[in-house]
Amino acid sequence: VDTLRAEECLELISHVPVGRVGVTMRALPVIIPVNFQLLAGSIYARIVEGSSLAAATSNAVVAFEVDSVEADGKGGWSVSIQGTVSPVTDPAQRASLLSVLPEPWDAVGDANLVVRLEIAVLSGTRVTRSSGQQ
Amino acid sequence: VDTLRAEECLELISHVPVGRVGVTMRALPVIIPVNFQLLAGSIYARIVEGSSLAAATSNAVVAFEVDSVEADGKGGWSVSIQGTVSPVTDPAQRASLLSVLPEPWDAVGDANLVVRLEIAVLSGTRVTRSSGQQ
Repeated sequence: VDTLRAEECLELISHVPVGRVGVTMRALPVIIPVNFQLLAGSIYARIVEGSSLAAATSNAVVAFEVDSVEADGKGGWSVSIQGTVSPVTDPAQRASLLSVLPEPWDAVGDANLVVRLEIAVLSGTRVTRSSGQQ
Repeated sequence: VDTLRAEECLELISHVPVGRVGVTMRALPVIIPVNFQLLAGSIYARIVEGSSLAAATSNAVVAFEVDSVEADGKGGWSVSIQGTVSPVTDPAQRASLLSVLPEPWDAVGDANLVVRLEIAVLSGTRVTRSSGQQ
C-alpha cells in the first residue's frame, strides 16, 4: 500500500470522468456520483440549479472521492478530498467553464450552475496487488 | 431517468464488488471504497479491527453508495443507501460470514471485523442514454 503524493493524486483523478461527492441531505449522509473536471488545482462541476444537490453543496464542506478499484475488487487506488463548494458567479469565467465542463451523467434539466470545490485536504492510497495477497 | 424499485436496487448492487461508504472522521466527511456483499437484504463487509474505518463506522449512521457509470461519464445507475453499521458478534455467524466475504481491496492487516449495515433508506436511479442526450 502506497500513500500518494499530492501531485500523484491530482494526476490520477485528472483521467477519471466521475467522482463521488458526500453531502448531508435532510440530516442524513448521502453519496452522489458526479462528473467533474480538475482545473488549476480545483474540482469543477455542473449541476442543475434548484436541485437537491445544488442546495446540499451550496457553500458546504463536502467529501469528494475518486477511485479506480480493479473489477475483481482487488487492488486499485483512491483519492480523498475535503473542501468547500462555492458557485462560480463571474459571468466570463462561468461561460468559459460551461464550454469545457462535462454534462452530468444523470442530467435531466439544464445543468447551468457551475460550482468549484476548493481542495482543502487531499490524500490518496494505491494498492498494487502482489502474489501474497489473497 | 428511471427511479428504481427496491428490488431493482438490490439486484443491481449484488453484482458489484465495491461500494463507497460515507462517514465522519475528525469532524470531516470522508468517502471510502469498500468491498461488500449483499446478504439477506443487508450489506456486509470485513474491515480491519482498530482501523480508523472501524472507529468511524462503529454503530454509526452512514451513507453507502454503489454505482456503475459509463466510462465516458454518460448514463449509468446509482443506488443510495443509509443505515446503521453494527459489528457481527455472534461467533458462529461471524465465522460463516468470514468464509464468504471478500477481503478489502486495500487490506494491509487482517480484516477480521465483520460489520453489517442494516438498510434503513434505499433509493436508486438509472439513466439510459438517448440520442437526444448530449
